[in-house]
Amino acid sequence: MIAKMQQVNIGIIGLGNVGLGTLEVLAENAGQIALKLGFGLRVAAVCSRSVNQKKIPETLGEVFKSSDWREIVAHPEVDVVAELVGGTSVAAEIIDGAIAHKKSVVTANKELMASCGSEIWDRAIRAGINLAMEASVAGGIPIHAVLREGISGDRVVALYGILNGTSNYILTEMEQRGAAFDEVLAEAQRLGYAEAEPSADVDGFDARSKLAILAALAFGERITPADIFVEGIRRISPLDFEYAHQLGHTIRLICAARQSPEGLFLSVRPALIGSKTIIAGVQGAYNAVWVKGRFGSDTFYYGRGAGALPTGVAVVSDLMRVAREIRHGRPERVSPFAHERLGEYRPQPVTREKCAYYLRFRVDDGPGILAALAGILAEQNVSLEAVLQLPCENKSNLPFVITVEPTYEHAVREAVHKMSSLDFLREPPLALPMEPPL
Amino acid sequence: MIAKMQQVNIGIIGLGNVGLGTLEVLAENAGQIALKLGFGLRVAAVCSRSVNQKKIPETLGEVFKSSDWREIVAHPEVDVVAELVGGTSVAAEIIDGAIAHKKSVVTANKELMASCGSEIWDRAIRAGINLAMEASVAGGIPIHAVLREGISGDRVVALYGILNGTSNYILTEMEQRGAAFDEVLAEAQRLGYAEAEPSADVDGFDARSKLAILAALAFGERITPADIFVEGIRRISPLDFEYAHQLGHTIRLICAARQSPEGLFLSVRPALIGSKTIIAGVQGAYNAVWVKGRFGSDTFYYGRGAGALPTGVAVVSDLMRVAREIRHGRPERVSPFAHERLGEYRPQPVTREKCAYYLRFRVDDGPGILAALAGILAEQNVSLEAVLQLPCENKSNLPFVITVEPTYEHAVREAVHKMSSLDFLREPPLALPMEPPL
Repeated sequence: MIAKMQQVNIGIIGLGNVGLGTLEVLAENAGQIALKLGFGLRVAAVCSRSVNQKKIPETLGEVFKSSDWREIVAHPEVDVVAELVGGTSVAAEIIDGAIAHKKSVVTANKELMASCGSEIWDRAIRAGINLAMEASVAGGIPIHAVLREGISGDRVVALYGILNGTSNYILTEMEQRGAAFDEVLAEAQRLGYAEAEPSADVDGFDARSKLAILAALAFGERITPADIFVEGIRRISPLDFEYAHQLGHTIRLICAARQSPEGLFLSVRPALIGSKTIIAGVQGAYNAVWVKGRFGSDTFYYGRGAGALPTGVAVVSDLMRVAREIRHGRPERVSPFAHERLGEYRPQPVTREKCAYYLRFRVDDGPGILAALAGILAEQNVSLEAVLQLPCENKSNLPFVITVEPTYEHAVREAVHKMSSLDFLREPPLALPMEPPL
Repeated sequence: MIAKMQQVNIGIIGLGNVGLGTLEVLAENAGQIALKLGFGLRVAAVCSRSVNQKKIPETLGEVFKSSDWREIVAHPEVDVVAELVGGTSVAAEIIDGAIAHKKSVVTANKELMASCGSEIWDRAIRAGINLAMEASVAGGIPIHAVLREGISGDRVVALYGILNGTSNYILTEMEQRGAAFDEVLAEAQRLGYAEAEPSADVDGFDARSKLAILAALAFGERITPADIFVEGIRRISPLDFEYAHQLGHTIRLICAARQSPEGLFLSVRPALIGSKTIIAGVQGAYNAVWVKGRFGSDTFYYGRGAGALPTGVAVVSDLMRVAREIRHGRPERVSPFAHERLGEYRPQPVTREKCAYYLRFRVDDGPGILAALAGILAEQNVSLEAVLQLPCENKSNLPFVITVEPTYEHAVREAVHKMSSLDFLREPPLALPMEPPL
C-alpha cells in the first residue's frame, strides 16, 4: 500500500487525443508506474473546454474537473501540470501560470517550445521548477532522453530526422504504388492521416518546429524555426522515385542539422538518400532520428511519430521523471537550450553548404538541350556527375536527370534560376540534395 | 571558471580499450560536459596493473595513479568509481569496495551485471549510493536510458536485439559474399574483429549476458543467463542465406525476450527475419534493439556495439548522470532489477513457445525422402507451409528446405530428433525459428 502523502499529484490540461492517451496510460499502467517509482502518480485534476463530455477512466478515482485551466495550475494539490492543449497563445499562458505557482511542467507542445523554448526554460530554472518536453518531438521516440542522458557525454556533429509522419506516409505510398502526390494526399485526407489543410505537414513547417527543438538540444544552441530552410514535398512525382531508384537512392523529407567549420546548416527538404541506409527503411507514418557524435559515431532511433498512446507514453515518462525529482532531489539547473554557454555553432544559410545534387528536368525535346543546361552549370563551376534518361514516349514532356558533384548550394540555385528562363523547359528544374551516406 | 569544490571527482579502474576511451572523451569533451552539468567532472585517480605505461591525456592535469584498485575506492577525493576492468571476480570486489566506501559506481561489466546485477543493485540501494551500467550492453546505443527514462511509462511486451557485433559481422559477410562460416571467421580473426577463442561471440554467450540485463530492465524481472536458451551461428551456411532470400528473409543472431500469457520466453539464436524489416538492415558490427510496448507500440535503436569511444561515451554519460545526482539530489531508491515487485512474468522454457520454423536438410537424394520427412512432421502434428529446393547438381549432398506453420518448439525438436536417425540425411536437420514481423 502506497501512502497517499507519498504520491505526486498531476493536473492535466487538454483532453484531446494526447490528453486522453495520457490518462489511459496513467490508469492502465498505474501499478507498474508506482513500482518503478517507489510511489504513485495520481491524477488529481483535469481540464478541458468540454470536460464533462470527456470519458475519464474510472480507476483513476476522484478527479477534480474544470473547464478553466487557471483552476488547475492554482489547485493546491497539483504538483505537476501537463500542458496538452497545443497551439501557442493559451499554452504559453498555462505554462507561465504553472511556473508562477511553482509547479513543474510537462508539455507536448512543439510550436511553443520551438519558438520560445529557451525563454520558457530560463523562467522555469529561475523559479526552481522542472520542465519536460519529450512528447514535443517524434511522440513515440524517446529522443529527448537520448540527447539529455543517453549520449550526453558525446558531442553531436550531425542530426538527421524524418519527423513528419504524414509526409513520410505520402512519399512511401508514392514510391510503392507509383501514385501522384495529389492522389495520395487526397486519399490520406479521406483516411484521416492528413489534415484538410495539409500545409503544415506537406510544406515542412511541422517538421521544422521539431527540428528546431532537436537541433537546440543537440547543439546547445538557441535555434528557432526561422533559422531553418524549409521546402515541402509537393513537387516530388512518382517519376522522381524511378530516377532515384536507378541511382540507388530513395526520397524522403529530411530534417538536417549539420555542423561544419563554417557553422551550423539547418534544413527541412526532400532529399535523395541511399536505398541501403537504415534511414531509407523508414516507411509510412513512422519517424526516425539519426545522430552522429564526434566520439560515439552514429546512432539511430525509430518509432511512431504520433498517436494518442505513443505520445501518452512520452508524457507519462516525463511525468515519472519530474515526479522522481520532486520526491528525491532538486531539478537540474542547466537549460537544455544552453545557448549562452554552448554557442559556438551559429546557424548559417544553407546556400553556403556543399552537397551533391539531383536535378530533374521536364523538357519539350529538341536539339541542343543538354548543351544549354550543361553550359549554365559550367558557368557556375558545377561539375556533372551523371546524366540519366529513362525511356519515355512523350517527347514534348520528356523527363531526364542530371546529377552534379558536391558544390555550393548557391551555385545550384543560381544555375536553376538561369535555367528557368529556357523555353524548352516545361517547368522549373527540381533540385534535390543528395545526402551523404547516413 | 568553475570552482574546484563544485567538481565531482572520478576514479577510473581499468585502462584497457574502454578505460582509455573514457579518458579521451573526458579530456576532449571536458568543456561541454561542464557546461551541460553546470559543474566539471575531474579525473582524480586512475588504476591499472601497468598504470605507468598508460598514456593519460595531459589536459586532465594532475591525476593520482595506482596499480592497486583499493587505493582508488578508498581515495578521499574520489566521489564516483568507474569499474572498467571486465571479468567477474576482481570487478565484483571493486564494486563491493566502492559501495563499502559509499562511492557511486559506473560499470561497463556485462558478465557481472548479468549474473549478479540484482544483488549488486540491492547492496547499492542499501548503501544509498547510485549505480549506472549503460556501457554494459550495446556500448554505443543508450538503451538503458531509453528503458529507464525514455519509455519508462510504457509496459514492454517484447524486446528483440542484435547484441553481438562479431557474429553479426560474420553473418553479413557470409550473406554478401557467399563465403563459408569458417572462412569468414578466420578472416575476422586476422583483422582483429574476432577473438582467437571465438566461442563467446559465435556461440551466443556474450549476447546472452546482454539479453539477461536488457530483459531484466525491460520486464522488471530477475533474469540470469541460465534462464536463456542459447544457440550459436556455427551451423549457418551461405546456402541458408540463399534459401532465406528466396523466402523474403535474412538470417541474424536474434536475442529475443517475449511476454506471453504462458510467461516470458528468452532465447539467443539464429533466426529468419523479414528482409524488409528495419532490423534486417543492421549490417556488420552494428548492434540494434527493437522494443514493443503495450502502449507506445514499437521503437528501434541502433548503433555501434563496441569500440573504445562509443563505449567511452556511454561511461561518460553515466558519470554525468551520477555526478548530477551527487550534486543535486539523492539517487533513486528503486532497483531496475525490481524482481520482488514486478515479478509477474517468469521465464519459461522456449520449448513451450509457438513459432513458424525453417528446416533445412542435406540429403543423399533418392525416392521417398519427402514422404519420410513429411511423415515425421505429421506425427508431431506439424503442418507444412512450403517446400523449396534450389537447383543443385550434387545429388549426393542435396540441400532443400521445408517451412512449417507456427507450432510448439517441442514438436519441432521432437521431429528433428526423429529425423536425425534417417540414413539419407548427410547431417542433422537445421531448424531456425522464423520471427514474427519486427
